[in-house]
Amino acid sequence: MKLTILGCYAATPRTFTNPTSQVLEIKSRLFLIDCGEGTQVQLRKNKIKFSKINHIFISHLHGDHLYGLIGTISTFSLLGRTTDLHVYGPKGVKELILLQLKLTESWTTYNLFFHELESKESEIVFEDQKVIVKTIPLKHRVYTNGFLFQEKPGDRKLNVDAVQNYNIHTAYYQKIKNGGNIMLDDGTVIENEKLSFDPIAPMSYAFCSDTVYHEAIIPIIENVDVLYHESTFLESEAILAEKTLHSTAKEAATIALKANAKQLILGHYSTRYEGIERFKEEAETVFSNVLLGNDGVSFEF
Amino acid sequence: MKLTILGCYAATPRTFTNPTSQVLEIKSRLFLIDCGEGTQVQLRKNKIKFSKINHIFISHLHGDHLYGLIGTISTFSLLGRTTDLHVYGPKGVKELILLQLKLTESWTTYNLFFHELESKESEIVFEDQKVIVKTIPLKHRVYTNGFLFQEKPGDRKLNVDAVQNYNIHTAYYQKIKNGGNIMLDDGTVIENEKLSFDPIAPMSYAFCSDTVYHEAIIPIIENVDVLYHESTFLESEAILAEKTLHSTAKEAATIALKANAKQLILGHYSTRYEGIERFKEEAETVFSNVLLGNDGVSFEF
Repeated sequence: MKLTILGCYAATPRTFTNPTSQVLEIKSRLFLIDCGEGTQVQLRKNKIKFSKINHIFISHLHGDHLYGLIGTISTFSLLGRTTDLHVYGPKGVKELILLQLKLTESWTTYNLFFHELESKESEIVFEDQKVIVKTIPLKHRVYTNGFLFQEKPGDRKLNVDAVQNYNIHTAYYQKIKNGGNIMLDDGTVIENEKLSFDPIAPMSYAFCSDTVYHEAIIPIIENVDVLYHESTFLESEAILAEKTLHSTAKEAATIALKANAKQLILGHYSTRYEGIERFKEEAETVFSNVLLGNDGVSFEF
Repeated sequence: MKLTILGCYAATPRTFTNPTSQVLEIKSRLFLIDCGEGTQVQLRKNKIKFSKINHIFISHLHGDHLYGLIGTISTFSLLGRTTDLHVYGPKGVKELILLQLKLTESWTTYNLFFHELESKESEIVFEDQKVIVKTIPLKHRVYTNGFLFQEKPGDRKLNVDAVQNYNIHTAYYQKIKNGGNIMLDDGTVIENEKLSFDPIAPMSYAFCSDTVYHEAIIPIIENVDVLYHESTFLESEAILAEKTLHSTAKEAATIALKANAKQLILGHYSTRYEGIERFKEEAETVFSNVLLGNDGVSFEF
C-alpha cells in the first residue's frame, strides 16, 4: 500500500503549497482522493500515470478539495482516454461537472460515471475482488465523507511441509487456501489450521478530511492501519477549529488513539503557521506513531 | 503599459507550462485577461496584488482559459476582499460561477458583477476616464472574443514658452490643453497649435486568442501598438490549425503586418514542439517586430 500526498494544505493553492489531493495505491489499484486546483500538475510532477486512475473520490464540495476535478476530467479527454472513469462524491458533483462540459462544449472521450452520495450512514461505495471502500461520515460545514479503503483478506497460505507429509493431492490446495478441512483416503479429517497459515493481514487506510473532532467515526475506522486525519490548526487555535468545524493536531491524535490506529498521518494544515513540525510535536503528546503529510511525499506501508 | 504573461501554452497545465492568463497594467489599471487553471498561483509567483484586480476578461469558455476563474474568485473571498469585481465573458460564465458558489455553499465577501457577452460585432465593454475596452470578435470552435485595450488621448501639452510670450493668464491653460484657441486682449486669435504640442500618443493593446486566421479583425485592431496573437502551431501543422480553428505563427505575423501593428507577441503554443524559438523565426519571415510570450515574462511599452 502506497500513499502519495499531492497536496495537503488548507484553503487556497499557493506558490509552494497545494490544496488537498492524494493517490492511494492499494492491491495495484490507484485511487485519487480529492482534487483541489492544480491536481493534474501535481500528478505529473509525481509521475503518476493518468491512465491508471479509474476512480476519484471527492470528500466534499469545497473548492480546495474540488476545483481541480473539471481540469483533470478534461485533460484525460484531451489525452484520448478510453477507459471508464468513476467519480464518487456528494450530490451536486455531477451537475457541476456536466454544466462545465456543456458550457465549454466539451465531451469526454471515455465513459464518465458519477456515484453521488447523500447517506449520513457509512456505506460501501466501491467493491471488487481485492478492495472495498466505505464512506466515513464526517462533520463539517457542508456534507462531507471520509473514505475507508480496505484490502480484502487474501487466501490462507499453504503449509507446504504439512500437505506433503499428508500426501495431499494438488487438486485440494485451493480448498485448503480457502480455509477448508481435508478428509484423507482413510477417512481421517485434517483441520485446516494444520495445513495452512493465516493470510497476510489485509491493510486498511482511512482518509478523514475535513472534519471537526468527531468520535462517531471511531467505530468505523477502528484498528485501521493508517489514518490520515486533518489537523488544520494547533491547540492554540482550538476555538477557531471548533467554529470552522476543523480539528487540531491533538484532536487528530486523540481520534487515532481511541480508534487504535497503527499510524497517523497529519495534513490539511492552515498556512498561518511557520513550518509544520509543531503539528507533529503536538500530536505526539497523545499518540506516538505520527507522520507529517507534505506535498510530494510518499509513504509505503 | 505593462503586460505580464502568467501562462501562454495551449490545452492543459503542465509541470512547467501554464494555460492562458495575463495581466495588463494600463494607466494604473490592472486587467486580468483569461484565467486558466493555476492562475491564482501564477499571480502570486509574479507578485501581482490580488486586491488591484477589479476586472477580469474571459475570451471564451474553454478550460485552458477558464478553469482557474472559480478558484480566483473564491480566494479573493477567503482573503476578505470588499472591492467590487467585474467579470466580462461569454454568456454562461455567470451560471457556471454561481452554480459552483451555490454547490460549495460559498459566497463572495464582495460584489461580483457579470457582464455577459453575446454580440458578434465589436462592442465597448468597459470605459472610464482613461481607458476603453472593446471586444474583437474572433473565429474559434466556440463563441470567442479578443479584447482591445486603448488609452484615451490625454490633454495637449502646453507650449510654456509660447504662452509666456503671449502673456496668457494661467486661467486659460486648461482651455489650451483641451485644444481651444485663445483671443488676446487686442482681439487677435492665437491658434491652439501655436500654444500647445500634441499629447503623448495613447497606447493600445490587442489580445487575440483563440482564433483561426481571421482577416475580419484587421479593421478593429488597425495600428495597434501591441498585438498578442495566438500561434498554436507552426506552418508545418497548417492543416491542423485550420481544422481546430487555431493559427500558425506565420498567420499571426500576417495579421500583425496587415493591421499595421507596431509589435507582435506570440503565445498559446502547442506543447508538441521542442522549445518556442521556431515560432519567432517563422513569424519573422513576414513581420519584423516579434516577441515571444512566455510564462512569467513581462513586457513594458
